[in-house]
Amino acid sequence: MKNSINIGLLGFGTIGTGVVRVLQKNADVIQQRLGAPVQLLKIADLDITTDRGVQVAPAILTTNVEEVISHPDIDLVIELIGGYEPAKSFLLKAIANGKHVVTANKALMAVHGQEIIAAANQAGVSVMFEAAVGGGIPVISPIKESLGANRFSSVLGILNGTCNYILTKMTDHGSEFAAVLKEAQQLGYAEADPTFDIEGVDTAHKIALLSSLCFGTRVDFNQVYIEGISNIDAVDISFAKQMGYKIKLLAIGKNHGDQIEVRVHPTMIPAEDQLAEVDGVFNAVRLTGDFVGPTLLYGSGAGMDPTASAVMGDVMAIGRDILCGARLRVPIMGCCEEAVQSLPIQPMSEIISHYYLHFKSLDRPGVLARIAGCLGDHHISIQSMIQPERHEADCVPIVLMTHAAKEADVVKALKEIEAFDITCQNPRLIRVEHDLG
Amino acid sequence: MKNSINIGLLGFGTIGTGVVRVLQKNADVIQQRLGAPVQLLKIADLDITTDRGVQVAPAILTTNVEEVISHPDIDLVIELIGGYEPAKSFLLKAIANGKHVVTANKALMAVHGQEIIAAANQAGVSVMFEAAVGGGIPVISPIKESLGANRFSSVLGILNGTCNYILTKMTDHGSEFAAVLKEAQQLGYAEADPTFDIEGVDTAHKIALLSSLCFGTRVDFNQVYIEGISNIDAVDISFAKQMGYKIKLLAIGKNHGDQIEVRVHPTMIPAEDQLAEVDGVFNAVRLTGDFVGPTLLYGSGAGMDPTASAVMGDVMAIGRDILCGARLRVPIMGCCEEAVQSLPIQPMSEIISHYYLHFKSLDRPGVLARIAGCLGDHHISIQSMIQPERHEADCVPIVLMTHAAKEADVVKALKEIEAFDITCQNPRLIRVEHDLG
Repeated sequence: MKNSINIGLLGFGTIGTGVVRVLQKNADVIQQRLGAPVQLLKIADLDITTDRGVQVAPAILTTNVEEVISHPDIDLVIELIGGYEPAKSFLLKAIANGKHVVTANKALMAVHGQEIIAAANQAGVSVMFEAAVGGGIPVISPIKESLGANRFSSVLGILNGTCNYILTKMTDHGSEFAAVLKEAQQLGYAEADPTFDIEGVDTAHKIALLSSLCFGTRVDFNQVYIEGISNIDAVDISFAKQMGYKIKLLAIGKNHGDQIEVRVHPTMIPAEDQLAEVDGVFNAVRLTGDFVGPTLLYGSGAGMDPTASAVMGDVMAIGRDILCGARLRVPIMGCCEEAVQSLPIQPMSEIISHYYLHFKSLDRPGVLARIAGCLGDHHISIQSMIQPERHEADCVPIVLMTHAAKEADVVKALKEIEAFDITCQNPRLIRVEHDLG
Repeated sequence: MKNSINIGLLGFGTIGTGVVRVLQKNADVIQQRLGAPVQLLKIADLDITTDRGVQVAPAILTTNVEEVISHPDIDLVIELIGGYEPAKSFLLKAIANGKHVVTANKALMAVHGQEIIAAANQAGVSVMFEAAVGGGIPVISPIKESLGANRFSSVLGILNGTCNYILTKMTDHGSEFAAVLKEAQQLGYAEADPTFDIEGVDTAHKIALLSSLCFGTRVDFNQVYIEGISNIDAVDISFAKQMGYKIKLLAIGKNHGDQIEVRVHPTMIPAEDQLAEVDGVFNAVRLTGDFVGPTLLYGSGAGMDPTASAVMGDVMAIGRDILCGARLRVPIMGCCEEAVQSLPIQPMSEIISHYYLHFKSLDRPGVLARIAGCLGDHHISIQSMIQPERHEADCVPIVLMTHAAKEADVVKALKEIEAFDITCQNPRLIRVEHDLG
């Protein structure tokens, strides 16, 4: 019987440092729970000289990835490099060498998951990625295991701390996007190049993975609708508030049986919903299963320590398998490969939603009638309307909330209204979600 | 290799019916995730004639428990009888027969857990009890697995749907306890004999289990402080609201390293805290680990379907072990037996808390000075005071919030104040928790 679990680390950045910290600080707890110590044999990084604030024996540091992924004594490789390449090549090589893999790489798993899973199944090794979604919050394991007897109808999430921090600040202080982004960058809550976060790509990677896990289907990432928060205006946040809503970058996965919805966009949700109260850099996931009902999992969605916690949870799960001789105990995506479906993603044009529409028109009599008429022609009925006081020069805002309507109809109507001679500015649309699980 | 997981059921009540329902309705999902079907071979109950609204082949029903626990083909026994006996004897017999066990029985696990765990470890079988705490919410597995690398400083919970329903109704409508209890009984949210729920015993069973799991220690259930909600007065809920608090039956587990706190009592918590917003029959658990930070798990804490979901999650976990030949993969209480500690529970007299104190005194000059003086003599300082308008005959209420004080000092002071000639009614005390993880 093995008397330790031997691991190697690829990438000694923030999360890698967190993993070293937890291994050192909680070695006793980990061993007591696992039944054997976890030994970190090698760390590979291009930079092995910078002081990360943790003590590491110089001999375990290397710039040569091969020393990790081909190390004869290493059972498990933790990949914390991020991005597609060279992370993918390293992972595949580690797998081919019979190493189990734990990764926090959502981009890689969401886009190249199939290839990695196929390689792992062939090699008989595990790939786990709890840290890829929701930081330290246990989400992936509960879907695959504790809640595994459920048919999930939806999975909704606030999955990006940067976006949620920015939207929270905009909501609380009425600030504009650009100013808050700058502040977030200064505080370290947003990257120097924040595109992946603020344009919703990171969130989309995560909801693609969650949808795949919950609904037992492959998700073609290219079919996921992605809209970020960079066009959100303080005034829309304020109008939303007046109407009893908050704007969140909501990740939405829904299962309609023959097709699924997987989409990410700024979304107005009722202010009293728990998801609306997830503020700042926190994350939350609401899973709705046919037996368990709605279940909310909430916590720190990012950061060195919470992410290291999730990585180590996976290391311990695989460690337990190693210690008791189990192989491929839980399928990588929670569902046996032969049962995984390939459900199509519903095109955005077909989704049914409520819509918040913000028009700016010349202040003429009959404006509302023309807009409402056009919407009506496209089978869109109005649920409520506010005509705020704010005027800019000759333009007046008109804010409408629609009843459930088809996206294609809304797009068509807005195109027509855009062309009206009374329209001062292209209408703004924010989807409204009431069906929150 | 085994091609099915064969189970037997003890107890065909509400949750048992839920288990049959999920096995029938989601047989495909369960098989796709597990890799083999789950077959229900036998159900034992004293009553095998009542129609439970589910179709069951008559041949699998029996009144003879032996036909389940000694069935040669049954791998796993689900115990849903509840209570101490005969559930305990049946469980021990099943274990002795080499059957794995899944149970929803918190009372049994909290009070007789040691004996059951010892028997299971000796027999080399698993005992799982996710359904015992928080209904369908994944709580126990995350503590043992995904969050297993953390040192937990606290675990807090709203763990009893009956109490939370009653307190929510009292808060929302200003109603008195007895009236709401009656209503809850009519709606099926409270048992005909609600003692175990409303006196906090059920909650105490659950927090004893959670504390044991989080802190890696045995918990002597007899040392757990338990105070229920039957003495909570509508007026105290209303004063709490004025001061920015809600009253919840909070289960508290804290780890001080050399000793732990495990207690259940009505608790005032800040109204803006997420736990204060857990309403009605919902449950929530907040775990705080040194790496993951505060993590909230929220969902349906009881009921046929959510509980069946949790039971089946455990069945599938053990099923996976069986299918890949793993034994005792995860220690029953999350920590290897030889590492389990026996930390003492801090006596209530030593705990440090803030206190809400409600006095009723004759309307005389100097009353407040006498009360404040007595508190001061016992090292208790006052944080805020309200003297509400409500008068009853000659008596006036005085409501104080203290700074952090020692329980023993508060008890002594209250005893002295009780004896004052101006005191109309024994003072009421509600602990206030700000340190919510």
